[in-house]
Amino acid sequence: MVGLGKMGLNLAYNLLENNYLVKGFDMDEKALSSLQEKGGIPYKSLEKLLGSSTTQKIVWLMLPSGNITNQMIDKCLNLLSPNDILIDGGNSKYTDSQLNDLKSKEKNILFFDVGTSGGISGARNGACMMIGGEASSFSLIEPIFKTICVNDGYLFCGAAGSGHYLKMIHNGIEYGMMQSIGEGFNILYHSSFDYDLEKVAKVFNHGSVIRSWLMELTENLLSDDAELNLVEGTIPSSGEGKWTIEEMLKLELSAPVITQSLLTRYSSMDEDKYGEKIISSLRNQFGGHEVNKRSELS
Amino acid sequence: MVGLGKMGLNLAYNLLENNYLVKGFDMDEKALSSLQEKGGIPYKSLEKLLGSSTTQKIVWLMLPSGNITNQMIDKCLNLLSPNDILIDGGNSKYTDSQLNDLKSKEKNILFFDVGTSGGISGARNGACMMIGGEASSFSLIEPIFKTICVNDGYLFCGAAGSGHYLKMIHNGIEYGMMQSIGEGFNILYHSSFDYDLEKVAKVFNHGSVIRSWLMELTENLLSDDAELNLVEGTIPSSGEGKWTIEEMLKLELSAPVITQSLLTRYSSMDEDKYGEKIISSLRNQFGGHEVNKRSELS
Repeated sequence: MVGLGKMGLNLAYNLLENNYLVKGFDMDEKALSSLQEKGGIPYKSLEKLLGSSTTQKIVWLMLPSGNITNQMIDKCLNLLSPNDILIDGGNSKYTDSQLNDLKSKEKNILFFDVGTSGGISGARNGACMMIGGEASSFSLIEPIFKTICVNDGYLFCGAAGSGHYLKMIHNGIEYGMMQSIGEGFNILYHSSFDYDLEKVAKVFNHGSVIRSWLMELTENLLSDDAELNLVEGTIPSSGEGKWTIEEMLKLELSAPVITQSLLTRYSSMDEDKYGEKIISSLRNQFGGHEVNKRSELS
Repeated sequence: MVGLGKMGLNLAYNLLENNYLVKGFDMDEKALSSLQEKGGIPYKSLEKLLGSSTTQKIVWLMLPSGNITNQMIDKCLNLLSPNDILIDGGNSKYTDSQLNDLKSKEKNILFFDVGTSGGISGARNGACMMIGGEASSFSLIEPIFKTICVNDGYLFCGAAGSGHYLKMIHNGIEYGMMQSIGEGFNILYHSSFDYDLEKVAKVFNHGSVIRSWLMELTENLLSDDAELNLVEGTIPSSGEGKWTIEEMLKLELSAPVITQSLLTRYSSMDEDKYGEKIISSLRNQFGGHEVNKRSELS
């Protein structure tokens, strides 16, 4: 296991509990000792980890997507032997995975891209995984997925890249569902009725058409603090929504809801509000409408 | 039970199975005999139904929303006695329910508006219900909801109208969730990978963040026919989405995803495509771009 962050460490725990031998590498010493406490074997360098066995190795990468993952894959490819197996379990862009598959094939290393859903609790107790790669080799690693996923919780999807592609679309759908929940509860919050929004989420989870894990999470977070006074109304994003829209454009399809969900996130992060300032000033220019002025420069 | 359509009849079955005495009225004789077969008492006229008892009556209306429901409520109010209870379990607009509550109060009749979710199977086996009305009288009918809803599947929401308001927002959220699922699967369908979309929906339902009843329904419908060749790509709507957007406008809030879901439905129903024709012709006018012409008038 290369990368013992929230996801990697919990996957390692999951594997250890199911009697797998897990060796792990991370730069963070705390993560390494956490692994050791649960029976895993910590390594302070990738070289030592990958040099610790001469039999066929299965290397699972669980790292931030992009440069960090891609550079680590390059390092691994230099250290691994033919027929070793390299699994990218992170949220990589599917085109990266297609390239990483080609690079792996040049060295006769078996590459699989694995999209992982279910969050941290899923990694620990049973995840949902979507796997792309060489169909004929999948049986070599299938027992792992049987072990760490919930029942029926993994799918071999097809060629390399198809696992991360499916995870990308999964997250696109997730964006839209979350946005829809946010909008509905926002209207309820501002309505003239006096709803107990925690109870609303709870009743939605019992027999309604919109019962879902996301609604259960909504119930949880509203039970902690229904006013959400301590939460900022900014929504970061980590790529999959953007890639879904890029793919929509590539295929020349229309996906307005996933698009709007992404744009709402971007808009929520845009502190400058430069566009809004232009529009407010234009209203003033042609119609003499008042502009809400700041009292001083911030 | 006034109105023995898909929802009303199944609610009646649900009540009968739980040892309630159920008397029903519908214009449709088949529905009446279906009720009778399961032990209910059929009435061919509203007058006879409401005249069949001198004790406090509980009248449950399960009718198409709008004029049909409102006119039936007027009829009932003329036939009921003070302290009788009138429940509108349909998908009425919350402002209608507020008016119907005022009319009922004038006659000392207790009015409750009940939003019902969970579809036909919910009505039959355990629904989710959101109830508005007079809090002090709710205990009179609460046992019914304990009986016909799933555990924790009902919520007394507050003043009259608040039940249908909450159901309206529930459906708004449902629009956005469904649209998000539709968009995601549309991209998968057109992608260069060869996904088995039934299996995709299935894996999404096992451990993923987007597991939900709507995704289970997606799995079902794809297992019947993943190509959906026999389904038209038109999406009717029955009001709640539109009302959610009207409410958004009234409150001057932004709900772009629920809005886009509604507009997608409208657009799917617009056979004329007059707006698209204008745009295609404009491209031709200024840029000489080719217009896709019909060979003959249709």
